Amino acid sequence: MAVISADQVKALRDKTGAGFGDCKIALTEANGDMEEAATILRKKGIAQAAKRAGRSTQQGQVGAYIHPPENKIGVLVEVNCESDFVARTADFQGLVKELAMQVAAADPKYVRREDVPAEELDRERAIYRAQAESAGKPASVLDKIVEGKLNSFYERVVLLDQPSIRDGEVKVAQLIAQTIAKVGENVTVSRFARFKVGEGA
Amino acid sequence: MAVISADQVKALRDKTGAGFGDCKIALTEANGDMEEAATILRKKGIAQAAKRAGRSTQQGQVGAYIHPPENKIGVLVEVNCESDFVARTADFQGLVKELAMQVAAADPKYVRREDVPAEELDRERAIYRAQAESAGKPASVLDKIVEGKLNSFYERVVLLDQPSIRDGEVKVAQLIAQTIAKVGENVTVSRFARFKVGEGA
Repeated sequence: MAVISADQVKALRDKTGAGFGDCKIALTEANGDMEEAATILRKKGIAQAAKRAGRSTQQGQVGAYIHPPENKIGVLVEVNCESDFVARTADFQGLVKELAMQVAAADPKYVRREDVPAEELDRERAIYRAQAESAGKPASVLDKIVEGKLNSFYERVVLLDQPSIRDGEVKVAQLIAQTIAKVGENVTVSRFARFKVGEGA
Repeated sequence: MAVISADQVKALRDKTGAGFGDCKIALTEANGDMEEAATILRKKGIAQAAKRAGRSTQQGQVGAYIHPPENKIGVLVEVNCESDFVARTADFQGLVKELAMQVAAADPKYVRREDVPAEELDRERAIYRAQAESAGKPASVLDKIVEGKLNSFYERVVLLDQPSIRDGEVKVAQLIAQTIAKVGENVTVSRFARFKVGEGA
């Protein structure tokens, strides 16, 4: 078993923001591998976050982002948490800012999958099915193809399903789960608005 | 006829932003009265603005305002003008900022009167009529009372009809007309969004 030095624990703490004890356990489990230990911590954090995800969020903050220098794209986003104390932390406010920039850059239409109107989903499904059929795909795989294309559709139009603009390997929902793990409260996005000059009215 | 000094002209220019010639003419007309001269200039500016008010506005900027320190109210506003040159002026950007703060503080529901749904107007009219009737007002004055109350309603819910949060004597529509006079282009507000934590969803 690898011997874990205090420097390693400190490096992992700096990297992940997790506590001393958790970092030491994760490094021991990972046999001293820093990347592996960070992954272990992230999984643990996200597992805890899932437990918190049902809790009611009444507090929070509204954040804005105006894309410089032209100021032709602007975003407003409301992010919620359980207490005003957490709303005032740098971790929470960093997430608010990040989400506003995400919406400005990646232009989602909805916060979560449930917000996509049923008619729009039906229309998308019909298009994907027709495309697959006219491409001569066998009937047995049509459903799978349609569901695959629907997932891509969600990744384009649903904020929580979008890949982060900073790290395409991480979804926005995971960014939020990481913040939940850090602040120890449930965190949700209730709504956003995105204005681009000339698109209104 | 009063003699107009260069100092007076300079003071009026500083106050109104109007040109040297216009300020001198206005002071002469006003017999040297600074307030009167400013009013003359404002009327002139608004008359010119009215001529510009039909012109198409495709350019502009999006502005935001987040109410500190709690960050629980946020506003996004799109303001349009005719050229990108004007969109980059301090006069235009000052108006954008001012309108975002106006929406944050005065909480309008609509940009202009035409945006109020007909059903909502009908409902308001019916309430005002019933109130006046039950207060025993004679039938001959009912219409006048209803229209008066409807004007107050517009001043509460319609951005352009609201009194400016800085100067209750000036309506938001006049603030915009003043900017039109200053920048020499039509200026319009196409939309706004206002989020208050807890009101969404």
